[in-house]
Amino acid sequence: MPSETKKPRPIWQDDPRGPVKVIDQRRLPHERVEAELRTVDDAIYAIQTLMVRGAPLIGVTAAYGVVLAAAAAVENGGGLDTIEAEAARIKAARPTAVNLAWAVDRALADVRSEVDPVRRVARARQTASALAEEEAANCRSIGLHGLPIIEALSRSKHGRTVHVLTHCNAGWLACVEYGTATAPIYAAFDRGIDLHVWVDETRPLNQGARLTAWELGEVGVPHTVITDNAGGHLMQHGMVDLVIVGSDRTTATGDVANKIGTYLKALAARDNGVPFWVALPHSTLDMRVRDGVAEIPIEERNAAEVTDLTGRTADGRTPAATRLGLPRLRH
Amino acid sequence: MPSETKKPRPIWQDDPRGPVKVIDQRRLPHERVEAELRTVDDAIYAIQTLMVRGAPLIGVTAAYGVVLAAAAAVENGGGLDTIEAEAARIKAARPTAVNLAWAVDRALADVRSEVDPVRRVARARQTASALAEEEAANCRSIGLHGLPIIEALSRSKHGRTVHVLTHCNAGWLACVEYGTATAPIYAAFDRGIDLHVWVDETRPLNQGARLTAWELGEVGVPHTVITDNAGGHLMQHGMVDLVIVGSDRTTATGDVANKIGTYLKALAARDNGVPFWVALPHSTLDMRVRDGVAEIPIEERNAAEVTDLTGRTADGRTPAATRLGLPRLRH
Repeated sequence: MPSETKKPRPIWQDDPRGPVKVIDQRRLPHERVEAELRTVDDAIYAIQTLMVRGAPLIGVTAAYGVVLAAAAAVENGGGLDTIEAEAARIKAARPTAVNLAWAVDRALADVRSEVDPVRRVARARQTASALAEEEAANCRSIGLHGLPIIEALSRSKHGRTVHVLTHCNAGWLACVEYGTATAPIYAAFDRGIDLHVWVDETRPLNQGARLTAWELGEVGVPHTVITDNAGGHLMQHGMVDLVIVGSDRTTATGDVANKIGTYLKALAARDNGVPFWVALPHSTLDMRVRDGVAEIPIEERNAAEVTDLTGRTADGRTPAATRLGLPRLRH
Repeated sequence: MPSETKKPRPIWQDDPRGPVKVIDQRRLPHERVEAELRTVDDAIYAIQTLMVRGAPLIGVTAAYGVVLAAAAAVENGGGLDTIEAEAARIKAARPTAVNLAWAVDRALADVRSEVDPVRRVARARQTASALAEEEAANCRSIGLHGLPIIEALSRSKHGRTVHVLTHCNAGWLACVEYGTATAPIYAAFDRGIDLHVWVDETRPLNQGARLTAWELGEVGVPHTVITDNAGGHLMQHGMVDLVIVGSDRTTATGDVANKIGTYLKALAARDNGVPFWVALPHSTLDMRVRDGVAEIPIEERNAAEVTDLTGRTADGRTPAATRLGLPRLRH
C-alpha cells in the first residue's frame, strides 16, 4: 500500500529502486496476492494476462514498464534504441488499449529528453508516478462532483441508508485510486453518510462479484452482491435510490457504452424513476462518434468466458477453472 | 422415453407394473441419469431434492406416488387408511406447490372409489397417466396457439431465421411435454420453420443454461446460451424477433410474475419494439390478485444459490459445488 495516502492502490513501489508491485487481480477475491514486476517481460505478462486491467491502470503499468526498460539498459549498457524497442513490445501487449500506447509514448518522450542512462530511469519513474497521481486526482475530482448527489439523497431520506446500485468494476482496482463510479461512493462514505451498495455480479466475467465487492470490503463500505437480474426487482420495490456506473466510451451525443448489462439497468431506472448517473473522466469522450448503438463496435470475446469460471470447490481446493457444462453453443 | 409420442418426457413408465422413471434434473446438463421411483419415499425424495421440478411435473410425480402407495398396500395388506397416510406424506413434500396437493387429492378420490386393492392400483395409475396426458395436451394447445405468431414472423422475414429469446425453463422438463414458453418453438420447429433460440442463462440457478439449452438440444432446436445481460444488446441490434416466457402467477389485470430477470427483458423488448409474449395455462391465473408488484410475494431463497454453483472442473471431475468466493454478503 502506498504511504502518501490512506486509500488502497492496485500498483505501487515500496522503494524507488525496488520492484513495481501490483495486486494480482486474477486471484481476487479468493486470495490477495502481490506480484512483483522486475522486468519488461513481467510488465507485459501482467497486462496480457489481466493481472492488471482497467484503462488507467494499464497505462500506469505500461509507464512503469518503460522504467524497467530504462533500468535494464543501465545494467546492460543498452542505449536509447534498446529502450525504444522494449517500449514497442509493451505497446503491443494489448492492441486495443488506447491508454497503453499513450502512456508508453509519454514516458518514452521524457526518457528521450535525457542523455544520461541513470537520469533516464529517474525521469521515466517521475513520469510513471505523475501519471498515477493524475489518474488518482481525476477520480478524486469525480468523487467530489458526485458527492452532493448522494448528500442530497441522504438529506431527503432524513439520514436513512442511501442504496446505490453499481454494475461491473469501475473502482480503484481499475483506476489507481477511488475509481470512477465508486469515487462518489467512497467520498460519501468518508463523510459518514449511511450508505449501502448493491453490487451486480456482472456476468459473464463477474467483475462486480469478484472485484467491486472485494474492493468495497477492503475499505469497509457495506454492500450486497446481487445477480444482474435482481436490480429491476429492487427498483420496483423502492430499494434503490441511485445507480452509478462507469463508461468505456461516451459519444458526442451522450450515448454511453459500458459493460453489456448496463443498458438493462438504465431501462429499469427510467421505468421506476430512479436517478441514473454515469461517472466518467474526459478521456472516455469520443467526439467523432454520435450514435453509440450503431457506431461503437462491441468486442466479441471467447465463448469460454460464459461457459467456464473460476471458483473454489466445496472441498476447499485452490481456485480452478470450472466448466458450467453447457452442452453446445452456436455462434 | 414414452412410446405413445416421439417427444421426450421427464417422467414415464416402461412397463405398467415396473418402476416410475424420471430424469434426474439435478445432474443436467452434465449427465442424463434416469432415476427409478419404486416407493413412496422415492417419490418424496425426488420432489424434495428437485430431481423433478416445475408445477405440472411435481403434480404428476405426486400422483404416481399415490400409485406406489396403493401398490405397497397390496403387498403389505394395508387398507385405505394406509394409502391415505402415505398420500398425506406426499402432500407435505413441498408445502407451497399447489399442483402437488391437488394431484394427490385427485388420485386419492379415485382410489377411494374402488374397494378391491388391486383395482385401486390400476385406478390410481389411470389417474396419474391421465394427469400427464392433460398437462401434455395443455402444452400442445399452447404451442398451437403460439405457432401462427412465429409463422407470421417467418413470412415477414421471407423465411430467414426467426430469433426467439426465452428466459428460465418453461419447457418439457417442467411440464411433462412441449412445455409452455417452449411449446410454440417446438411447434414451429416441427413445421420446418427456420428458427434459433437465444437462451438466457437465468442466474442464479441457471435453469436456462442447464435445462432449457439441454432440452432444446435433445430435440435438435438450434440455440445459443447467452448471459442474462446480453438480451438487451441483441434487441438493440435487431437480433431478436420475439420473446416468449412462462408465468408463475398471472393477476386479474394481466401482471405476470415469473423468474426475476423477466422484467428487464420486457423493458428491453418495449424499448426496441420487439414482440413479448407470455405462454401460460389457465392454472397460473390468480383472479384474486390485481397488482403483481405489490401483492405477489417473491420467494427469498438461500444466499448460497448466488455464491455457489455446480459445474465440472477443468480436470474433468464429476460435478461439484463450487463457491464463487464472494468475501461477504449483507442482507
